[in-house]
Amino acid sequence: MPDWAQLDRALGEAVGPQYVGSGDCADARFRCDVLQKYVQDPLFVVRPGSTLEVATCVRIAAEHGVSVTAVGGQTGTVGGAITRPGGIALSLERMAAITAVDTRAMAMTVQAGCILQVAQEAAEAQGAFLPLDLGSRGSATIGGSIAANAGGNRVLRWGMMRDMVTGLEVVLADGTVVSSLTTMLKDNAGFPWKQLMIGTEGTLGIVTQAVLRLRPRPVTDQTALLAVANFHDVEHLLRMLEVRLGGRLSSFELMWGEFYSAMTQAQLASRSRPLEEGHAFYVLVEMLGGDPTHDAVQFEEALTDAIEDALVRDAVVAKSGKEREALWAVREDMSPGLAGYRPFSVYDVSMRLSDMPAFTTDVRKQLEAVFPDARVLFYGHAGDGNLHAVVNVGPDGPAREQEIDTIVYEATSRVGGSIAAEHGIGQSRAMYLSLCKSKAEIELMRRIKRALDPLGVLNPGKVLE
Amino acid sequence: MPDWAQLDRALGEAVGPQYVGSGDCADARFRCDVLQKYVQDPLFVVRPGSTLEVATCVRIAAEHGVSVTAVGGQTGTVGGAITRPGGIALSLERMAAITAVDTRAMAMTVQAGCILQVAQEAAEAQGAFLPLDLGSRGSATIGGSIAANAGGNRVLRWGMMRDMVTGLEVVLADGTVVSSLTTMLKDNAGFPWKQLMIGTEGTLGIVTQAVLRLRPRPVTDQTALLAVANFHDVEHLLRMLEVRLGGRLSSFELMWGEFYSAMTQAQLASRSRPLEEGHAFYVLVEMLGGDPTHDAVQFEEALTDAIEDALVRDAVVAKSGKEREALWAVREDMSPGLAGYRPFSVYDVSMRLSDMPAFTTDVRKQLEAVFPDARVLFYGHAGDGNLHAVVNVGPDGPAREQEIDTIVYEATSRVGGSIAAEHGIGQSRAMYLSLCKSKAEIELMRRIKRALDPLGVLNPGKVLE
Repeated sequence: MPDWAQLDRALGEAVGPQYVGSGDCADARFRCDVLQKYVQDPLFVVRPGSTLEVATCVRIAAEHGVSVTAVGGQTGTVGGAITRPGGIALSLERMAAITAVDTRAMAMTVQAGCILQVAQEAAEAQGAFLPLDLGSRGSATIGGSIAANAGGNRVLRWGMMRDMVTGLEVVLADGTVVSSLTTMLKDNAGFPWKQLMIGTEGTLGIVTQAVLRLRPRPVTDQTALLAVANFHDVEHLLRMLEVRLGGRLSSFELMWGEFYSAMTQAQLASRSRPLEEGHAFYVLVEMLGGDPTHDAVQFEEALTDAIEDALVRDAVVAKSGKEREALWAVREDMSPGLAGYRPFSVYDVSMRLSDMPAFTTDVRKQLEAVFPDARVLFYGHAGDGNLHAVVNVGPDGPAREQEIDTIVYEATSRVGGSIAAEHGIGQSRAMYLSLCKSKAEIELMRRIKRALDPLGVLNPGKVLE
Repeated sequence: MPDWAQLDRALGEAVGPQYVGSGDCADARFRCDVLQKYVQDPLFVVRPGSTLEVATCVRIAAEHGVSVTAVGGQTGTVGGAITRPGGIALSLERMAAITAVDTRAMAMTVQAGCILQVAQEAAEAQGAFLPLDLGSRGSATIGGSIAANAGGNRVLRWGMMRDMVTGLEVVLADGTVVSSLTTMLKDNAGFPWKQLMIGTEGTLGIVTQAVLRLRPRPVTDQTALLAVANFHDVEHLLRMLEVRLGGRLSSFELMWGEFYSAMTQAQLASRSRPLEEGHAFYVLVEMLGGDPTHDAVQFEEALTDAIEDALVRDAVVAKSGKEREALWAVREDMSPGLAGYRPFSVYDVSMRLSDMPAFTTDVRKQLEAVFPDARVLFYGHAGDGNLHAVVNVGPDGPAREQEIDTIVYEATSRVGGSIAAEHGIGQSRAMYLSLCKSKAEIELMRRIKRALDPLGVLNPGKVLE
């Protein structure tokens, strides 16, 4: 057992006593994840104000045999930023500065605690564009988005967070600061250590600062909601739009009919339904371009051809920013539609696009065999092969979540998919990792963990059991 | 010292004696790199025919205390695939199969020894497109391109090899096979171990097979050569085209005036010069699109606006495949133009685009102070911040290469750049790594190397001294 008073004093000296709180006074987001599955008081909540203070805290924790979990916006769904018993929650909230927006180098330097939307807006204010975009943009942080290798709505065109990080500063498990805040797009000098810090959920290092690649701000924005009759047509529509729109297709968000009905029925009080119910699939398509003269024409011609080829059965194209927001709301304003599905379990799996119909059929069948009242909503970033699912099996869902998890993840395994496309493993999925990773892969991961964090200081019990 | 006869026998049993050659009978590409800087007979040349045979060879080598260097197309310029004394050269040439081209999943599975151009053509034959493209496409292999994290002509749009690898199979230093031949674009389950194998030049694992992401084959191809008066205009032109052409700008290759003159003068016997000499900069621009009705118009309108804004002083647009090839030849058919620069040293550095003028001026000045007859040709993938240089200082260049290296790399360090943008570190640049990487970074790299290859079996003396 660590000497609580001594640890308290040492942390207070490191960051200032006003920035060290005992865990039982911590506010809710340090004690409980967003889905309220994991509840754990941290030993302390520490709020360092600089990278050096983060390093000192980690060193002190290591000396006292106490673990450290970095906390960002707490928008994760897998319990990745909830401490284990007796661990310190290290909040990056005081390190939220935008250090630089460099439009010549097309890069911005930000501290880990900066909110994604704040970073997006800072880039836009300079005429640039940070492509990463998530539903939780208003509370997710840059550090958390790096730790999770966040994906979201525009991966199809600009990739995941991994593809936007050019510079990184991290604190290792022994308190070493490793910093390379470069704007370079290409750097093959030495091992790509930054890659190891992206997507590893704070288990190999704590991200304190990053440089993100920016893009020129798009000038035109075409958005449409399309109804599609079957999955075969969904696949063909995606490939056809990828060709026709060149590199400008930015989103291809797929909603199964049940999802569309649930969302739009719940939203009818505040807005009308953009397309009738009853189609098998709905696709939200976005094209971002730079040519006001031709872009809209090209987009509508491509859609017209898709309709003539019967790939698309019905379509609505946004004619204003307000209409665009209304189309996106069908996909993103999920709280009202999900109300009737509580309590639910959420899933984030990855697979070949063409395996999705077999997978969804399989999951439904397996669930209904065990839970006759099971209801499932499927939706996701189909252009990236990323499927989300919301599952309600009735009031005893939370008590029987492991059964539901097993059904979904075993079905994922059967199509050779991944149990974590963009939400990570955290603690809720660690026990299922072997369903999508071989023994040799997991042993290699463990070897990397042992080399970088031999004492298990950083976010223990996450990713690897 | 290993028991030579016993090792020979063990390797022969592993792969068949006909595929084990003693090093002094090895053909030139195993003994000498393409720039003829490193000459070293391997102890043996081994040609395994399968991943399991690669694994067995590595295990045998480790047991005998002998190192293994994987050899692909030997197109590298940094001596990365030349063995150290007493090491085994392990050629992947018998493992060159294209296992699958899956146009539904938009992915291809290839063995490491497959030639890049063969892979490109196999994808095209199925209506798909492998975007990686290099001057050495006809001899570089997929395995080597992964080991080097190859870049080339289209990084601006599709990224480097790192961005195309979805699946990977490697043999670790202890002979373990780690395999994850998946086509998934998104997979955040566990640590991204594949990332550690990409760009680490065979020092952490030997790539035996990979899955590469494919794209729809572009339908339209617009190519132009543009003359630009100053570097400020080069920067503005790049940003303007990035906006106007949306995601379709695929190449932005910059040539300094001296480079253009040297290349086109040497090529005049076989083809005419597309633009007059005398401009400060020449830019080769490529846009790949999918809309035959509008793409050419949009491209020409963007160029017309660039000319009206005086960003472009002269321009020629390719009107046929033959004209397109002729424009690319100015940039790629370098042998005739380089003849008058032999002996030369080549460099591949990375930096902020806006630092390039200061850098090139600095390098010229420092070189001329030491070598009054120094001549430098600058060119490169400017859209990625990647600059290449060819330096001739007279006949004693090879003997004094370390002095030239130091001048170029110290100038790179002064602008915060990287000494290896896309060609890697190999053995020729390992001693300069600390000019662009901090002690903490290099120590972290060493820790990773010790964890994955504690005995130093895989390609020793490369990347890290």
